[in-house]
Amino acid sequence: MSKKDYAKLAIEAHKKYKGKISIEPKMPLETKDDLSIAYTPGVAKPCEEIAVDKEKAYLYTTKGNMVAVVSDGSAVLGLGNIGPEASLPVMEGKAVLFKKFAGVDAMPIVLDTQDTDEIIRTVKNIAPGFGGINLEDISAPRCFEIERRLKEELDIPVFHDDQHGTAIVTLAGIYNALKITNKKIEDLQVIINGAGAAGVAIVKLLFEAGVKDVIMCDSRGIIYKGRNSLNDTKQKMAEITNKQMRKGSLEDAVKDMDVFIGVSVPNVLSKEMVKSMNKDPMIFAMSNPIPEIMPEDALEAGASVVATGRSDFPNQINNVLAFPGLFRGALDARLTKLTTKMFITAAKAIADCVEVVSAEKIIPSPFDERVPQRVADAIKESA
Amino acid sequence: MSKKDYAKLAIEAHKKYKGKISIEPKMPLETKDDLSIAYTPGVAKPCEEIAVDKEKAYLYTTKGNMVAVVSDGSAVLGLGNIGPEASLPVMEGKAVLFKKFAGVDAMPIVLDTQDTDEIIRTVKNIAPGFGGINLEDISAPRCFEIERRLKEELDIPVFHDDQHGTAIVTLAGIYNALKITNKKIEDLQVIINGAGAAGVAIVKLLFEAGVKDVIMCDSRGIIYKGRNSLNDTKQKMAEITNKQMRKGSLEDAVKDMDVFIGVSVPNVLSKEMVKSMNKDPMIFAMSNPIPEIMPEDALEAGASVVATGRSDFPNQINNVLAFPGLFRGALDARLTKLTTKMFITAAKAIADCVEVVSAEKIIPSPFDERVPQRVADAIKESA
Repeated sequence: MSKKDYAKLAIEAHKKYKGKISIEPKMPLETKDDLSIAYTPGVAKPCEEIAVDKEKAYLYTTKGNMVAVVSDGSAVLGLGNIGPEASLPVMEGKAVLFKKFAGVDAMPIVLDTQDTDEIIRTVKNIAPGFGGINLEDISAPRCFEIERRLKEELDIPVFHDDQHGTAIVTLAGIYNALKITNKKIEDLQVIINGAGAAGVAIVKLLFEAGVKDVIMCDSRGIIYKGRNSLNDTKQKMAEITNKQMRKGSLEDAVKDMDVFIGVSVPNVLSKEMVKSMNKDPMIFAMSNPIPEIMPEDALEAGASVVATGRSDFPNQINNVLAFPGLFRGALDARLTKLTTKMFITAAKAIADCVEVVSAEKIIPSPFDERVPQRVADAIKESA
Repeated sequence: MSKKDYAKLAIEAHKKYKGKISIEPKMPLETKDDLSIAYTPGVAKPCEEIAVDKEKAYLYTTKGNMVAVVSDGSAVLGLGNIGPEASLPVMEGKAVLFKKFAGVDAMPIVLDTQDTDEIIRTVKNIAPGFGGINLEDISAPRCFEIERRLKEELDIPVFHDDQHGTAIVTLAGIYNALKITNKKIEDLQVIINGAGAAGVAIVKLLFEAGVKDVIMCDSRGIIYKGRNSLNDTKQKMAEITNKQMRKGSLEDAVKDMDVFIGVSVPNVLSKEMVKSMNKDPMIFAMSNPIPEIMPEDALEAGASVVATGRSDFPNQINNVLAFPGLFRGALDARLTKLTTKMFITAAKAIADCVEVVSAEKIIPSPFDERVPQRVADAIKESA
């Protein structure tokens, strides 16, 4: 089925069902007695107990299984800054994935503001009813401060999926690609093209996983200490990446690298550039729907393994392998924070779900039903 | 079954089900194609169309059927200011009533602030994902300003149920009580005890319905122009009520009245006070669970009809007769405001659901399945 058909089918389905989520009662409501238990006068008793001990909200309400999927609509899919209403279909999609893959109740909360402080205040104000916050499609660099401050100020897990979801699944792919290429993570030379939310998170996670150096590129080429026109985030990245102080273009950056990670734009990686990389290079070309290089071209140029963001090629880097299980584990274990250490554990759990690793299979299928529970278990153990 | 049993059963049920609501997918999610339609890549198309025309959010998302049940936990049931977490069981209860009685999706949003401006900002910030706002259990006088400003500043219906829900169902009861007593609404002498959210809303709705004068009492007695220690709200009420400028206690106020409406505290209306009222007085004693006067005492003292807030006496004034149908109608007709005129239409529709009016039956049962749709239809017609 072509992409064009999915667009048409999506319009038809969204119109038919009027969106994707429904809020349903999960307690009986048939008799007068049912109402007296679910509502007045019975409901007063759980209220009173929670008033004495807030923790009991986890016992008597949906809070402990309820995640807010929060977006300001500023960086939605490949569509950019389309605003809160237009981001709703994506946030509802996220909510149904949460339920289908991990039994988590998730509610889209789309915001009529793109001001960092205002977003933080609003999320804090609505937090008492939620057991976790999943930030979604909020543009860099605001997303970094929003996540950091909410993590500091709230006592429930806060997770920006565009950053860490992508980073975790990418690392899972790298773990299995290492098995094919017989390389070691501490020896990898890594180039990341794209210095947005995902790129920054991938760099941080790779360092934590043992990678020694990474080179980052943005649309102007290699990021290095002292380069002109670096925003705050990129300046910080310049401090911790590119120890060899390479300068130049993406073409210069990919030479002698083991891993190319693209979270950028279509068709920026040529066959010649792949050929200039180290032997058996790993290519993660995640620009969606059109990758940085098409898999067949990368393989022809000598890539040992290719992953993309697409479901119609092998090795799809799909966040759905990470976020449902992560929140399932965090909610079950009543974690107040999700840490980088947990992300690494999650990446290993995802990688381990592939029983026979091959160039065409470094990542489990998004429909592999074992994945969310394995990720959840890993999170709980690492806590 | 005694009240104590309901408390115990409520604790057991809330613990068993871990709250009352569940967020469920309403689009198929079984195959890869399903996912490509509900999520990427298909979902991009409805997003793009909404980005061009926000109105299409009503076509492609749950917004048009989704109401936020917003509370700061400051005036919950008879429990008072118990805070956001402790208010959750009530808000979840409200959400399930919305679904059961009118098919409306409703999401509890409980707020970690009781500051008027902050509540207004927060609700405005989260409004893009909702088709309506139901304010709940927010204490007076803050609730008045919050509702007024949100109505002004949002283009979706905003409704404070504690005010208007109670007022609408009370008026419905009065309409049918008039049939029993052969009195006319424009001749009624009405005393309202309690000058909180519900009391103020009832006064305003009665005036709109044709009542000429009303006397309000608070815990210090009759409210009149120039009385000491009146807050802003009560000062405004003093301007529009009590044209005869009566002064004194509740006992003085009830003399020669046709209707007593209590939204106050238990046992403040004695048999002697009922006897001092006009012939065939109507008593609405809605303090819950213990009314201002017990029905048997009121009837012994000559009341023509007695209503309370309780399900174990005849004529229960239950907001569930109003809010589900009101929002059903408002959402179906895409109303941007709910007006007092619509509230009167709704009260008439509720009253008309009682086919054989008697002293024991001036209000339909909360389980009368015709009520929400009749209210919805009335709202749509009056729009």
